Amino acid sequence: MLTRDDLMTLDGEDPLAQYRARFDIPDGLIYLDGNSLGAQPKSVPAAAGVVLDEWQSQLIGGWRQAGWWELPLAVGDKIGRIIGAAPGQVLACDTTSINLYKTISAAVALRPDRSVILTEEIGFPTDQYIVDSVAERTGRTVRSVPRDESPADYLDDSVSVAVLGQVDFRTAALLDIPTTTAAVHDAGALVVWDLSHSAGVVPIALDADGADFAVGCTYKYLNGGPGAPAYLYVNQRILSETVQPLQGWLGHAEPFLMANEYQPAPGVRRFLTGTQPIVAMRVLDASLDVYADVDVAEVRAKSTRLTEMFIRLVDERCTGMGLDLLSPRPAESRGSQVSLRHPEAVAVYDRLVANGVRGDFRSPDILRFGFAPLYVSYADVWDAVEVLQSVLAR
Amino acid sequence: MLTRDDLMTLDGEDPLAQYRARFDIPDGLIYLDGNSLGAQPKSVPAAAGVVLDEWQSQLIGGWRQAGWWELPLAVGDKIGRIIGAAPGQVLACDTTSINLYKTISAAVALRPDRSVILTEEIGFPTDQYIVDSVAERTGRTVRSVPRDESPADYLDDSVSVAVLGQVDFRTAALLDIPTTTAAVHDAGALVVWDLSHSAGVVPIALDADGADFAVGCTYKYLNGGPGAPAYLYVNQRILSETVQPLQGWLGHAEPFLMANEYQPAPGVRRFLTGTQPIVAMRVLDASLDVYADVDVAEVRAKSTRLTEMFIRLVDERCTGMGLDLLSPRPAESRGSQVSLRHPEAVAVYDRLVANGVRGDFRSPDILRFGFAPLYVSYADVWDAVEVLQSVLAR
Repeated sequence: MLTRDDLMTLDGEDPLAQYRARFDIPDGLIYLDGNSLGAQPKSVPAAAGVVLDEWQSQLIGGWRQAGWWELPLAVGDKIGRIIGAAPGQVLACDTTSINLYKTISAAVALRPDRSVILTEEIGFPTDQYIVDSVAERTGRTVRSVPRDESPADYLDDSVSVAVLGQVDFRTAALLDIPTTTAAVHDAGALVVWDLSHSAGVVPIALDADGADFAVGCTYKYLNGGPGAPAYLYVNQRILSETVQPLQGWLGHAEPFLMANEYQPAPGVRRFLTGTQPIVAMRVLDASLDVYADVDVAEVRAKSTRLTEMFIRLVDERCTGMGLDLLSPRPAESRGSQVSLRHPEAVAVYDRLVANGVRGDFRSPDILRFGFAPLYVSYADVWDAVEVLQSVLAR
Repeated sequence: MLTRDDLMTLDGEDPLAQYRARFDIPDGLIYLDGNSLGAQPKSVPAAAGVVLDEWQSQLIGGWRQAGWWELPLAVGDKIGRIIGAAPGQVLACDTTSINLYKTISAAVALRPDRSVILTEEIGFPTDQYIVDSVAERTGRTVRSVPRDESPADYLDDSVSVAVLGQVDFRTAALLDIPTTTAAVHDAGALVVWDLSHSAGVVPIALDADGADFAVGCTYKYLNGGPGAPAYLYVNQRILSETVQPLQGWLGHAEPFLMANEYQPAPGVRRFLTGTQPIVAMRVLDASLDVYADVDVAEVRAKSTRLTEMFIRLVDERCTGMGLDLLSPRPAESRGSQVSLRHPEAVAVYDRLVANGVRGDFRSPDILRFGFAPLYVSYADVWDAVEVLQSVLAR
């Protein structure tokens, strides 16, 4: 049986332990919901002050002087370093849903003779809704991969694009990007990866793996703040051939010509549509600095151990208490989250919150616990299970 | 001939003079570019501090506790009061371009048998690009109204929707919403108004005038900050029939069911797509408070007089200096901006900036001067023309 001392020992050996001091976590809270909204980096308030000063003092001049104009690309490149993308292929902009619409539409247009969009039967809802919308508006049909089956088995030469999440938001099941991308390409199709639930905690090498498109949000493990601008990636290999429907002024090759006809910008900027929220963009920019010297492989190693310890402690201390492990048991198949089913999940969730452990609940009976390795400690894992056990024992 | 004292007298009688103290304007700057980026309300830094505290302390709980979830509607209603829309019809979200895509697509879908989208030959570029995109993707053709002609003369029973700007960004020419909307409706078509260059300075009564859709940005006269979230309006009369292509999780009737099928929310929330940037939204929310007790009719009265004084002073003091008035001379046909053409407009613009007068330049030869009546004084108008005259005299 593990003891709290065993977990304290792991904290003592943790090469990432120093990062917790860079976040402003409320005292006494065990926060296991960084997979929904990341904690606030301490660098954020100063960055917000800077951008408000820029606005106040430079006014319209801030677009050039303060570099606002370049922020979607500059912040995009910072995200690129985390997801294995060389500069010039990532834009920070809009929302994940909107970036899905842009990239899926672009992929479908690149495969005009193919009639099927492939996606997951139980993907994140917004991915499904956007896939359905693009399919309906482009006369395509949607083919869904049943849970626990491999997308590779549902590919054929009618598939234009596969829209896949790297980590399942419900179960934390992990899909392998290199092998899946290769299978999609073997079928002559393109892939759009949704990295919302994986970026920052699972090593990602979009360029090396030859991924075509990717999207993701920045308010989970990337700690960009509530509703922070999302991002999209387009591989340089296909960039110049792409067109996307949300063609706006900001994506024009020469916006200040104010031309009547749209001419897409040569680079990834063609996926930009309108003006981005600069205050939120600067906050995100500052949040990403936490990752400047982080090795995501090291984050993954800690993430794996955190979730292993959590599962082991639940096994040891909560047997016969109605919990079922929904997440994959093999660590290599699991993201940085553990999902447990319980017939009274809502009540359990409420009591956990009341006792200082913040995970979350997903309908109908799922308790999710996310482990953000930059600020969650092994002792937190022990303490969370301690509270979980006492809540269930009541 | 007018004197500076005449303008000081107007300032002394100005019922809006008190509002300037609510903005943080750099000392010594005459800022005539509020039509591009509004100045910063003094309430903004505190509001930014509040939302960062909410994020830090409430974390994921902020969505309910701090009311983040309701912000697109709550902020939308604040904007609604400025544009004559009763509650529940306006959403603050995304960008103007994206909201154009949503509303134009929705309008086209409501008139499935009509083949034409009507727009302006020289509208704002993003409006044209989005119109072109929707037309291409829905098999419609675009019909353009030449400058200085009336949209009413280009309507017939093939037109599904007219996409029109209330104020022309180049010339400040003003289109009459009630008569134009009535003409569009007489032809059986729908209208999408772009209010970006008019909201806050021209009285707008969307509900009373029976407008169908509207969009706009909030970073010009509404002072929401660089790239602040935009807005859209859908008239309650047609809301329940509308569908729009950017159908995302946030627009679902019951998002937390995490259902596989999209079911649009009953109200205007169906036009929401993804998660909005909450930090930027709170900043916008605080900025809009400046308008809480403002009568837009009073703003319009001052705006008219400011632009009249500017034109009169340019006439009196800059004759023979190469300036041509591009804006309409009758005040009732002009927004809160005066555009002047000059063969060396770029050089003039640069020297104006160097001498503390910030207007802007639009290709190829247009100098634009925007008058935000909440913080621009009559003395500013005098001083701006004084600098303009001395720059041109050199």
